[in-house]
Amino acid sequence: MRYGFGVDIFGPNIKFGFFDEEGNLIDKWKIAAPINTESNKIIPAVAKEVESYLKKKGINEEDVIGIGVGIPGPVDRTGVVQKCVNLGWGVFNIEHALSGLAAMKVKAGNISTLSALGESWKGSGSVNTVFMAMNTGLGGGIICDGRLVRGNNGGAGEIGHIVVNKAEKEPCACGKFGCAEQYCSPAGIVRVARRMLTNTGAPSVLRYKKFFDYKDVLKAAEENDELSINVMNRVYEYAGQALAAVCCVVNPDTVVLGGEFCKIGQPAMEGVARSFKKYVFQANENVRFTFAALDTDACIYGAFKLVLDNYG
Amino acid sequence: MRYGFGVDIFGPNIKFGFFDEEGNLIDKWKIAAPINTESNKIIPAVAKEVESYLKKKGINEEDVIGIGVGIPGPVDRTGVVQKCVNLGWGVFNIEHALSGLAAMKVKAGNISTLSALGESWKGSGSVNTVFMAMNTGLGGGIICDGRLVRGNNGGAGEIGHIVVNKAEKEPCACGKFGCAEQYCSPAGIVRVARRMLTNTGAPSVLRYKKFFDYKDVLKAAEENDELSINVMNRVYEYAGQALAAVCCVVNPDTVVLGGEFCKIGQPAMEGVARSFKKYVFQANENVRFTFAALDTDACIYGAFKLVLDNYG
Repeated sequence: MRYGFGVDIFGPNIKFGFFDEEGNLIDKWKIAAPINTESNKIIPAVAKEVESYLKKKGINEEDVIGIGVGIPGPVDRTGVVQKCVNLGWGVFNIEHALSGLAAMKVKAGNISTLSALGESWKGSGSVNTVFMAMNTGLGGGIICDGRLVRGNNGGAGEIGHIVVNKAEKEPCACGKFGCAEQYCSPAGIVRVARRMLTNTGAPSVLRYKKFFDYKDVLKAAEENDELSINVMNRVYEYAGQALAAVCCVVNPDTVVLGGEFCKIGQPAMEGVARSFKKYVFQANENVRFTFAALDTDACIYGAFKLVLDNYG
Repeated sequence: MRYGFGVDIFGPNIKFGFFDEEGNLIDKWKIAAPINTESNKIIPAVAKEVESYLKKKGINEEDVIGIGVGIPGPVDRTGVVQKCVNLGWGVFNIEHALSGLAAMKVKAGNISTLSALGESWKGSGSVNTVFMAMNTGLGGGIICDGRLVRGNNGGAGEIGHIVVNKAEKEPCACGKFGCAEQYCSPAGIVRVARRMLTNTGAPSVLRYKKFFDYKDVLKAAEENDELSINVMNRVYEYAGQALAAVCCVVNPDTVVLGGEFCKIGQPAMEGVARSFKKYVFQANENVRFTFAALDTDACIYGAFKLVLDNYG
């Protein structure tokens, strides 16, 4: 039996998964990430952790396929990190860097797309999966015939930046106007709620809060606050519209909703599916909607699968 | 050296290409398609043509990889034609049918997506290509890492059915409202022109024609007819918007414009690229735009590539 690592460099923590080649998760653990230091100490920390784990377990390096790594930013097909502001990284080849230090094969990808691959492989997805997750932003990942679609420079699956509202006057963080992420994200939800409070006289419990966040809007909607319900319906409307467009491109059999959509639960599923139905092309009418099953482990599964697909 | 066939069953004609395994086109020719007959005689005609060609050339069947077939309708991953109204076909497995009669491996796909594959392989595309062609409708095809994206039931690349205008009141042929194809197609162009003539008082040479078709609108636009220019700008606006969404999904390096876009030439390229730029996500800013290079041979190249990828 051969083995491999799936690593999720999210930010404050680095999560490790140790898998056998059939994708069984043998061990998982976290270490604190050495961030906000003068030089990049994350990559050496990952290499050291892998080395000490293998030593502790008495596993030969020859039995290890490699290390798959997920990071919160785009990675191109050659392994070059374009920019990863969360980690304070510039442009460098993460695969070469880690491969050199760990003396092992390395493949790296974006966290959202690797989560999609994990869900497709061992979660609730299938070999043809579209993954959409609301976390800080609206991320995604595309799996076709069991393979991760990475694109030319690692930018595939950026479905949060599909323009869904050409009338939008406020810019998205990306600089364009009317991206799905401007509505389907915690910051977007607060933004839309504030705008509705300003532009309408509709009563709302939110009027009695100087500060509120996305969870307040969600809670108010659950308690039948009409304005908050309208805000959340806007979220589902645009998410479903974007997904209908994505399905025209890749015709999946499954759409997996992840991140905050899972926490919201049934109202999110019903809302997104209702909107999807309005815009869906006939070939995609029977696409199955489901929630992510691997929770925050999706990325380590996907990261291992990536290195397995390339070097297994 | 081994060989194979690429066949394009477009409608009135069936086009054959005979290739070597490196993709050099050795021969191409057409036969009339036996359509509008009581039973399906197209498949037997293809099998017979292949057999007689090999006999005439003295080529052994063992040296033939197989036959790739393009048809004007969706084909699922198992080879089942869902419906192909242009040919009067119902639901049947075209790969099994032709494979049985020709005693050869067969892979089939949709003409638009196989044209995309042909352009990606031997035309002006690359291994990561989005193909958009305006013919009767607005077709497309997606190539990721050199492989055709077919989707779950052959419906991938149906980018003409991305909803680009939620305010549309007239239904698309597919039953939804505001699909890109409702504007970016010959019938769509006439529809938009008629609507502008009715809803505005703008002067136009089209007012002096009881009947006009897409080519009249295009010609008037070229001659600076303002209303016609507005109609064509609407076409490019929606085509570029749809392409920006497609690129968010698959992050290609090349967009290939085919069909009528090639005939229109530079105004189409400039118009689509201008709109694309308005909506494009930063990861796709450097996507290259180009015209299709293989003209109507794209499908036979792609059809042969499909069988080569599967059985070569």
